[in-house]
Amino acid sequence: MSGQTLSPEEIGIGMRISVHPHSDDYERIILDALDTTKNQIDLGGLEISTGEVSTYVGVKTGAAAQRLAEYSTTLIASASRASNRQHLTSHLLFSRGCPGEATCELIPGEIPSEQTVTLERTGLEAAAAWSLYPLADDGSAHMDPIYAAIDQAKASGVTVTSEHYATILRGDLADILGVVVNAWAKVGQEVPHVVSHVSVSVDSPSAQRAGDAA
Amino acid sequence: MSGQTLSPEEIGIGMRISVHPHSDDYERIILDALDTTKNQIDLGGLEISTGEVSTYVGVKTGAAAQRLAEYSTTLIASASRASNRQHLTSHLLFSRGCPGEATCELIPGEIPSEQTVTLERTGLEAAAAWSLYPLADDGSAHMDPIYAAIDQAKASGVTVTSEHYATILRGDLADILGVVVNAWAKVGQEVPHVVSHVSVSVDSPSAQRAGDAA
Repeated sequence: MSGQTLSPEEIGIGMRISVHPHSDDYERIILDALDTTKNQIDLGGLEISTGEVSTYVGVKTGAAAQRLAEYSTTLIASASRASNRQHLTSHLLFSRGCPGEATCELIPGEIPSEQTVTLERTGLEAAAAWSLYPLADDGSAHMDPIYAAIDQAKASGVTVTSEHYATILRGDLADILGVVVNAWAKVGQEVPHVVSHVSVSVDSPSAQRAGDAA
Repeated sequence: MSGQTLSPEEIGIGMRISVHPHSDDYERIILDALDTTKNQIDLGGLEISTGEVSTYVGVKTGAAAQRLAEYSTTLIASASRASNRQHLTSHLLFSRGCPGEATCELIPGEIPSEQTVTLERTGLEAAAAWSLYPLADDGSAHMDPIYAAIDQAKASGVTVTSEHYATILRGDLADILGVVVNAWAKVGQEVPHVVSHVSVSVDSPSAQRAGDAA
């Protein structure tokens, strides 16, 4: 399959997202955030399907990485504001290159490139545990793109530390999701199937005690 | 490195776990659950370190898969009970084979095998979005062990459905985590570096409306 003419849907670009307000009022907060997101973001060309555990957002057309980054930043920031800044977490899974029908048949070097994502800052300080998995079938060393992505995160202004199995990012929510989505999209230009998981935490009391969150 | 004599710590077997009660009272619930877990489980030989986003649990000695499965099942079930069955989610990342110091130097065929995990049922019906990533460097097809693991999950009695980027498991919390940990440990006997992510949901109102959770 020649990749250069493929749509995001044909490549299989999308995410799963869940938002977890630590509040008795979580159902209202999530519904409010979904409403706000629908009003702020053009949802045309996105396929959105909500399951019991998380919501799938697939991109059919357009600048896929930018659209997913905007959707997730807006949804999480809206939920945080709708909760009056109670503690909130979110889990995101970004996937690229295995739509199912065309499982991992993309050819390295023929994969469409992505524009770098740009996002407006949210004013919400967040912490995230981030993992990036290039699922190469070609025998190339899978750790190299990970180290390159971590170096790029460090250059972005976000605070980067290493823990077991994850890299911890701290900064504005939009800057964190920008780093995550850009790294994933960049690796995805070279590795046919790439997945990234990130757990985001906003307004955690432990961060407030440590003085490193607003 | 000859693998057969390696300890879990040398192989790099552990997890990151976070528990998210959807409750104003989340701090007390989590502290209660940690206390209960400490009283029910022998924590000797585990390295536990709590970060802002999630907690790292590394296994130094013993039956690694069994110990991680028991710890996570007990912690999530205890939090659910401490919250009086308010909606609760948990995110888990299991990793095997990349301790950092000995990055991915394990030799297929020389990796110590794991006993199959057995867990007591909790009486808590749960749903989970599960992903399994064999991070092979040897050019073998990375989807094959995933399909084998999904077949085994189907044979276990847990309800298995496919969604974009994840397999949905429904059943008793212990049965779900047993399937996840056994699949990950089994793939890890053949693929040096294997990671699995699972988002667990207990007592979600959408499940209750659909009638498929207690």
